[in-house]
Amino acid sequence: MPTQVLEPDVAGGPAPAPAASRSPIEHIAIICSKGTLDMAYPGLILANAARMSGIDATLFFTFWGLDIITKKTLDRLHVATVGNPSMHMPTMLGGFPGMETLATFMMKREMAKLDIPGVPEMIETLHDSGAHLYGCRMAMDMFKRTKEDLVPQVEDVISAMDFFDKAAGAQVLFI
Amino acid sequence: MPTQVLEPDVAGGPAPAPAASRSPIEHIAIICSKGTLDMAYPGLILANAARMSGIDATLFFTFWGLDIITKKTLDRLHVATVGNPSMHMPTMLGGFPGMETLATFMMKREMAKLDIPGVPEMIETLHDSGAHLYGCRMAMDMFKRTKEDLVPQVEDVISAMDFFDKAAGAQVLFI
Amino acid sequence: MPTQVLEPDVAGGPAPAPAASRSPIEHIAIICSKGTLDMAYPGLILANAARMSGIDATLFFTFWGLDIITKKTLDRLHVATVGNPSMHMPTMLGGFPGMETLATFMMKREMAKLDIPGVPEMIETLHDSGAHLYGCRMAMDMFKRTKEDLVPQVEDVISAMDFFDKAAGAQVLFI
Repeated sequence: MPTQVLEPDVAGGPAPAPAASRSPIEHIAIICSKGTLDMAYPGLILANAARMSGIDATLFFTFWGLDIITKKTLDRLHVATVGNPSMHMPTMLGGFPGMETLATFMMKREMAKLDIPGVPEMIETLHDSGAHLYGCRMAMDMFKRTKEDLVPQVEDVISAMDFFDKAAGAQVLFI
Repeated sequence: MPTQVLEPDVAGGPAPAPAASRSPIEHIAIICSKGTLDMAYPGLILANAARMSGIDATLFFTFWGLDIITKKTLDRLHVATVGNPSMHMPTMLGGFPGMETLATFMMKREMAKLDIPGVPEMIETLHDSGAHLYGCRMAMDMFKRTKEDLVPQVEDVISAMDFFDKAAGAQVLFI
Repeated sequence: MPTQVLEPDVAGGPAPAPAASRSPIEHIAIICSKGTLDMAYPGLILANAARMSGIDATLFFTFWGLDIITKKTLDRLHVATVGNPSMHMPTMLGGFPGMETLATFMMKREMAKLDIPGVPEMIETLHDSGAHLYGCRMAMDMFKRTKEDLVPQVEDVISAMDFFDKAAGAQVLFI
């Protein structure tokens, strides 16, 4: 049963208005839910780019994303080598011991070449630039972590309802 | 070639306006595209927190996310143990039979300890609180499912274009 | 320690305003960060649905998402068979050589049955309908790709800060 959604001949519609006439983004609120190195970086990089553009940035770390702000883990995030065909690596090979470590090492080296700091330094930079970092209370309870387990740049541990309050006026992203 | 994007010394910019002066969030529209237990919960929990704050909530289930509203699968969602280094488990071990079942059991137990209901109960609660649940027509066609395969709390099966209509005034999240 | 976030008896709140009274979506800006076929399609399909509804569409390809606009890879994206319990396939089996190829073949066949074009055709359609496609400069540097490696429909290679400028007035989605 064809869906009529994507037929090229009906694609089109009016030309979009030029971006200049639209309201600029004033605030970005990012929910960081993943703890892999390759999914930690996008949230931190987007928040940093926002602050450099004078855009407010709020980060809410939940589920596996808690690892990004946990003292014991933030410097040990790994790149996933299985379940990611973009690694261009046979699935079986990706599962071998050492492959994750190798892929992680390579990504860190490439990031360093581009003058992009490691995760701990990026957390510091974000905090110093006025971004707001929060841990998710429910995820903290689920993973049995306390405020003392988190890096000092985390302002508070809050609920999802609190997060919505703090995300007023923001574009909300889920990573 | 450095990118100039993330150098700490240029980070900064004007201090963000206090959140209080920004428009509060009035509507959250969540696209649920994944069928793992650990990615089903965030969408359901955020929608629930929204409704508890008087924020409208619209959920659009597409691709693997259809499993969250399919009768045969919603109570059998699993935590992925491979491709997720945050499990803190050797990749090879994560692939062994039984590891997914164990991780799923453990997450469900922790959620229950926190008084967080299972997926079927959360779907009911969301519906009862006035959230709107929709299936994606294209995904339904792709996976050969009919409206009868879905839980009764799903209002309708709609296209992505319909979803954009229903997401008027909303912050749109993709999970 | 219960979190008070999700107890069914406190869920509720005022009934949401009808969607008709809310501002319609005028612009969708999608950050495509993943290079699997099943995560490439949602971004392309949502952007296409947006253009068909007269909504402006901006796509920013970063990290693994660069594969979607890279000449050598856009026609070879794969479905991940491990790390995705929604495949309803034993984890060990998903890792066997050939399973990814099989799952990819099956998804492409189902998409074709629904008259949904392949990724290269969708990129062309999007471009022809007025959507804007951009590569992420940092990801290009990291993966050592040049503008010549990208499909001609890509307008430019820009920074995350540039992306925020171009996303003015948009709902921003991260995929």
